[in-house]
Order: sequence, then C-alpha cells, then structure tokens
Amino acid sequence: MSVLSDEQVSERLAGLDGWTRQGDSIVHVATLADFKAAMLYVGAVAYLAESANHHPDIAIGWNTVTLTLSTHSAGGLTAKDFALAEQISKLG
Amino acid sequence: MSVLSDEQVSERLAGLDGWTRQGDSIVHVATLADFKAAMLYVGAVAYLAESANHHPDIAIGWNTVTLTLSTHSAGGLTAKDFALAEQISKLG
Repeated sequence: MSVLSDEQVSERLAGLDGWTRQGDSIVHVATLADFKAAMLYVGAVAYLAESANHHPDIAIGWNTVTLTLSTHSAGGLTAKDFALAEQISKLG
Repeated sequence: MSVLSDEQVSERLAGLDGWTRQGDSIVHVATLADFKAAMLYVGAVAYLAESANHHPDIAIGWNTVTLTLSTHSAGGLTAKDFALAEQISKLG
C-alpha cells in the first residue's frame, strides 16, 4: 500500500464531503442528536472498520464523534484511508 | 452537585484503581486484546454512562480506550464522576 502524494490526497479529498486533511491523517467530525445516537454511529463505523481491517481513531464527546484515519504501517495516507472514508460517508 | 476539594479528590482516587487526575478530570486507560474487544468494552461503558446520565469522553485507538470524566456543569470533579468511575472499574 503506497503513500499518496499531496496532489493525490487533494484530488481525493475534493471528492469527499466533510473530511479535512490534518498532516498525515484525514479527519471527519460527525455531530449526532445525543450520546445514544453517537454510539449507534460509532457501532456502524466500527463494523465498516473491522470489515476493512483498517481502524480509525475514534473520539466520542457526548454527541460528537471525531474520526481520524491514517495508514500508520505505510507512514501516511493511502488508498485504504480514502476507501474507508467513502464507506463511512455513505452512512450519511 | 458540588465540586469536590483537592483533598476529597485525592481520598477518592486512593480507593480507585487505574484512574489518575488530570486537572478537572479523572482519566482511565484500558488496554484490550484488539479493536473488537475495545468496542465491546466501550459498549459496556456507554451503557453505564447512559444509565447514570453522565458521559465520559471516550477515545478509541485500536485496542486502547481512554475515558475522561468530569462534571462540566459543575466546573470540576463531583461525586457523580467517582460513582461512574467505580462502576466502570467493576467491569474489570
């Protein structure tokens, strides 16, 4: 899994709503109705992550869920990060 | 719900394994076998939190779960934080 260039990252981010780049990661902040809704969302993200065998860092602050994706084994952002980000975005 | 004094916080922390004070919060880091186990642990913590109507910040990093408890509405640590921390600690 090769690390994407800055140009490739920018191109892929342009096609992906609600994600921003932070250094070697892409980050998405989801705001839900309340803690229960946030936990249900995290459950769905966790299922997708486990299926992809690729796991974001997940931070839950009551109704806010922050997802941080990076391919640590490759030392940067790879196609794997964007594939999972796209799946997560489809959760709506 | 009144804010506990430094002395009261120290006393209560002494009776609570695996939690440390960080400013106006108490923090617990749990290390599980893998991501799936971490998610199951988070599910149990979330159930206890929802039952207590008191919610820690939860950060998941693959097999590591960091819980941060504080009573924001009171501006510090209260009996509510320690009551929930004790319940969480009983999960083992």
